[in-house]
Amino acid sequence: MNLFQKHESLLHQAVKALSERKYFTPYPENPKAYPEDADANAKAWISETMNNNFAGLIQNASEFIGEEVSPFLQVGIGVRYPKLSVNDLISNGELAQKSWAKTSIEERTGLLIESLERVKARFFDIAYATMHTTGQSYMMSFQASGPHANDRALEAIAMGYAELTRFVHETDWVKSMGKFDLTIKKNFKPMPKGLGLVIGCSTFPVWNTVPGLYACLISGSACIVKPHAKSVLPIAIVISELQQVLKQQGFDSNTVQMAIDSIQTPITKELAEHPSIKQVDFTGNSEFGNYIESLPKTTISEKAGVNSIILDSVADLKAVAGNIAFSASLYSGQMCTAPQNIFISEEGVQTSEGKLSFDETVEAIKAGFNGLIDHPKAGPGTLGAIQAEATFKRVSDLNASNHKKIVDSKSILNEEFKDARIASPVVIELDENDSNLYNNECFGPVVFIIKTKNLNDSIQKAVALASQKGALTCGAYTTNETSRNLIEDAMNEIYVPVSFNFTGAGFINSHAAFSDFHLTGGNAAGNASFTNADFINRRIVWVGNRYM
Amino acid sequence: MNLFQKHESLLHQAVKALSERKYFTPYPENPKAYPEDADANAKAWISETMNNNFAGLIQNASEFIGEEVSPFLQVGIGVRYPKLSVNDLISNGELAQKSWAKTSIEERTGLLIESLERVKARFFDIAYATMHTTGQSYMMSFQASGPHANDRALEAIAMGYAELTRFVHETDWVKSMGKFDLTIKKNFKPMPKGLGLVIGCSTFPVWNTVPGLYACLISGSACIVKPHAKSVLPIAIVISELQQVLKQQGFDSNTVQMAIDSIQTPITKELAEHPSIKQVDFTGNSEFGNYIESLPKTTISEKAGVNSIILDSVADLKAVAGNIAFSASLYSGQMCTAPQNIFISEEGVQTSEGKLSFDETVEAIKAGFNGLIDHPKAGPGTLGAIQAEATFKRVSDLNASNHKKIVDSKSILNEEFKDARIASPVVIELDENDSNLYNNECFGPVVFIIKTKNLNDSIQKAVALASQKGALTCGAYTTNETSRNLIEDAMNEIYVPVSFNFTGAGFINSHAAFSDFHLTGGNAAGNASFTNADFINRRIVWVGNRYM
Repeated sequence: MNLFQKHESLLHQAVKALSERKYFTPYPENPKAYPEDADANAKAWISETMNNNFAGLIQNASEFIGEEVSPFLQVGIGVRYPKLSVNDLISNGELAQKSWAKTSIEERTGLLIESLERVKARFFDIAYATMHTTGQSYMMSFQASGPHANDRALEAIAMGYAELTRFVHETDWVKSMGKFDLTIKKNFKPMPKGLGLVIGCSTFPVWNTVPGLYACLISGSACIVKPHAKSVLPIAIVISELQQVLKQQGFDSNTVQMAIDSIQTPITKELAEHPSIKQVDFTGNSEFGNYIESLPKTTISEKAGVNSIILDSVADLKAVAGNIAFSASLYSGQMCTAPQNIFISEEGVQTSEGKLSFDETVEAIKAGFNGLIDHPKAGPGTLGAIQAEATFKRVSDLNASNHKKIVDSKSILNEEFKDARIASPVVIELDENDSNLYNNECFGPVVFIIKTKNLNDSIQKAVALASQKGALTCGAYTTNETSRNLIEDAMNEIYVPVSFNFTGAGFINSHAAFSDFHLTGGNAAGNASFTNADFINRRIVWVGNRYM
Repeated sequence: MNLFQKHESLLHQAVKALSERKYFTPYPENPKAYPEDADANAKAWISETMNNNFAGLIQNASEFIGEEVSPFLQVGIGVRYPKLSVNDLISNGELAQKSWAKTSIEERTGLLIESLERVKARFFDIAYATMHTTGQSYMMSFQASGPHANDRALEAIAMGYAELTRFVHETDWVKSMGKFDLTIKKNFKPMPKGLGLVIGCSTFPVWNTVPGLYACLISGSACIVKPHAKSVLPIAIVISELQQVLKQQGFDSNTVQMAIDSIQTPITKELAEHPSIKQVDFTGNSEFGNYIESLPKTTISEKAGVNSIILDSVADLKAVAGNIAFSASLYSGQMCTAPQNIFISEEGVQTSEGKLSFDETVEAIKAGFNGLIDHPKAGPGTLGAIQAEATFKRVSDLNASNHKKIVDSKSILNEEFKDARIASPVVIELDENDSNLYNNECFGPVVFIIKTKNLNDSIQKAVALASQKGALTCGAYTTNETSRNLIEDAMNEIYVPVSFNFTGAGFINSHAAFSDFHLTGGNAAGNASFTNADFINRRIVWVGNRYM
């Protein structure tokens, strides 16, 4: 049985799931679904790995570098990675490209799904690696970089398989000419665009990297992954597993390579501008993303956005406030899908127990945040740690500002990691005169409550902001159908999805693979979507030849 | 029965045909398949139409203009069209956009296929309109602007339907949380990009316009068509039928509008740059195409390319020469798929009857051209007339040049249209020192035979040219499998399709809907392809909303 046959059943389920968009995952998100000793083994693994050269990558290098810092320990983790020159990366990649382009779609599909099986066996290693680079909590590190990332990778493989096989690859075209038939043999080939570069981000080094990586590979292009210099270890594990399975199956392990650089001496632009790089996937800030998009090649971007919540009317304000607090506090607001702005009418909010004033609503939100953050079982596990010093400073500065603070940011204790860099959200009340503040992305645990004139004003402000700066999501609370349609139509028209009345276990931050499109590709937050057909089709060119 | 139900069976056949890529057309290309009196009625219609205001468009205007000239008669045809200002076109279009975006995919599909049925009833009118604007022969006018164009339009509708329905539009997403289920209702909407502009060309005013027009409409966007000022009448008929069926079905007839301008006072740039125009389809020269592509909106371009033939080895040189002569002479080389350069090794050409020298091969090609052009039943009907004065001048200049002419361009007699602007192909022999000439597009009946060192040199020259200038097709003649693979791999790598060993009734110029992709979108000849998934998906954004 070859690898395609081994994984064929899963493949077809995945392709079907793409269309149906129901709950689907072959990789359980509950750590308890995995072997009992997996966690202990991973703990031992991370101890051995720290302060060593990373083992597993099949990349020859004379120099090893690394400068990651654990947000939980606030010390360098000392892992060093093989450093190849841009020229070596490119020439290795070009060579691998030639052979990878010639593999069949079945070979690619089987091998890539197999690599996800191998990655699955490393979920716990990846979890600790993610914690000590991104500052995500244990559970989020496990889920986001493990099963959820694998889901997204499988989604890209499935969409790739579907698109690459959507047209027959060979046919006889027969046209009756009356007295005779004109027969022309034809082939149709999805030709790969060529060597890809995937640029990772510091906060989600696996989840945001694997869609582009696997989309590139399934489409027949070799790929160089350039992680953020501060978040290398988790994706290095994934790449090592890919390289191992490539080698094992007799393919060039350079089909996937990892590039490493440093904050002082970055190589990203040199790689991205290299004429041999034909496609670039990027996750990161808008300024660099706009630069990437300006390159004369295929580009796929996830940039920054500013996400809004529109609060109109609710059944149960306490449940709503708790949900919003969690959404904004989860990983200290360092998710691209975290809400930043809450627009509330000065007229207040209708609830099932009567109308509450604007101030009463703000009080309820305050209680939601305090209840979550001060709860010893909820606070540290929800917040995780702050990945970057710059994020920490941004929150500290706002905390020390003269704005009307509803909730102060504070450093709560994480019993396990007493040196962790922690900052709970600062919640600030603003009015429309403060648009300079709320109309910009303040990445991290920062929440603005903006007093508006009425619902229409709230919508208008959210729309204006998302039109200009982009948004990945929008939360809305309304019990009124007309209002719901107003909000949905207005936000959808600028290609922002809306999540209505989320409470309990539903959070606007979560984008589930095989169901929720991550980004629409239609606003300034990015030019692509995980994973629609376009995410694959931009990477190939259909060419048909004819023979008489 | 509504229009969707009426055409549902055809729709499903068309969607299936897209994948299978076999011969498929619901619109017979043989004029004899249509009512006997159709041609006579059309002749009467064109006589009435000339020197009158065009009737049928539902567009209010105080001014009517038109400046088309018949290449067969070399006099103005005097048809005038309602002239709307850019502002009026845009504001009408924006209003229509709002309602058209709200129609269901089924409504759009039914209505658009119905419009093709109405267009079918006008095929003969369109044929005469095409003759007297483009200079295409009667048969080509009928086929290219009639059934073949309808095929391409249906192809766009079918691909649109397939893509717009590829994800469920509503679902319940249910995730087991152990003690309870988390249920989230979701919808998924293919949101249109918005008001489109389709810019037509002078030589194929229908065939090159309808793919973008119908792709735009099926995707939920209203559309303004701006034909070339010298080629309006054929597409005006199509638009009038669309407007009539829109009105009849209770939709805003401004969902499709025709813009008219003049060579002296063009409005294309003003329309294309208007911020309300969200997507632009363009067919025409590369300079203007590059400008269109530079606009900050969705653009779909078919620009110029230079098509090559690589002549290596053949079974029957006479058959090959006749085929090449026909390809280059058909509509006087004014097809974007016409071959311009024939690369032949100085070592000569292997045939089944032994090796022929380069000069003997050139002699055979000369005989192929002369045999076709001088044949009274073949020449005039193949050549048609020259659409533009500039094309005529280009050929005349080359004819009068000092280059080594193998076949002179001449004006042969068309018994029916004695005043027709006719120029048969000039065939010129060049060597590699003349690359300045053959490495540029010489639109019209111009053929260069280029003497190369060997097959590899021929391939290299064809690849270098197509890499830089783009190409829509490449013809190759070789009886050797290794050579065939060499050519195919080299051309496919730069995303140019190859047609091998075409003789008899197969011509490299022909791109059949539902089978041959027209353009690959991967080289400088254009950024899109009729009709892959991308041709639709660029025009929509998937947005998913969630409800708890």
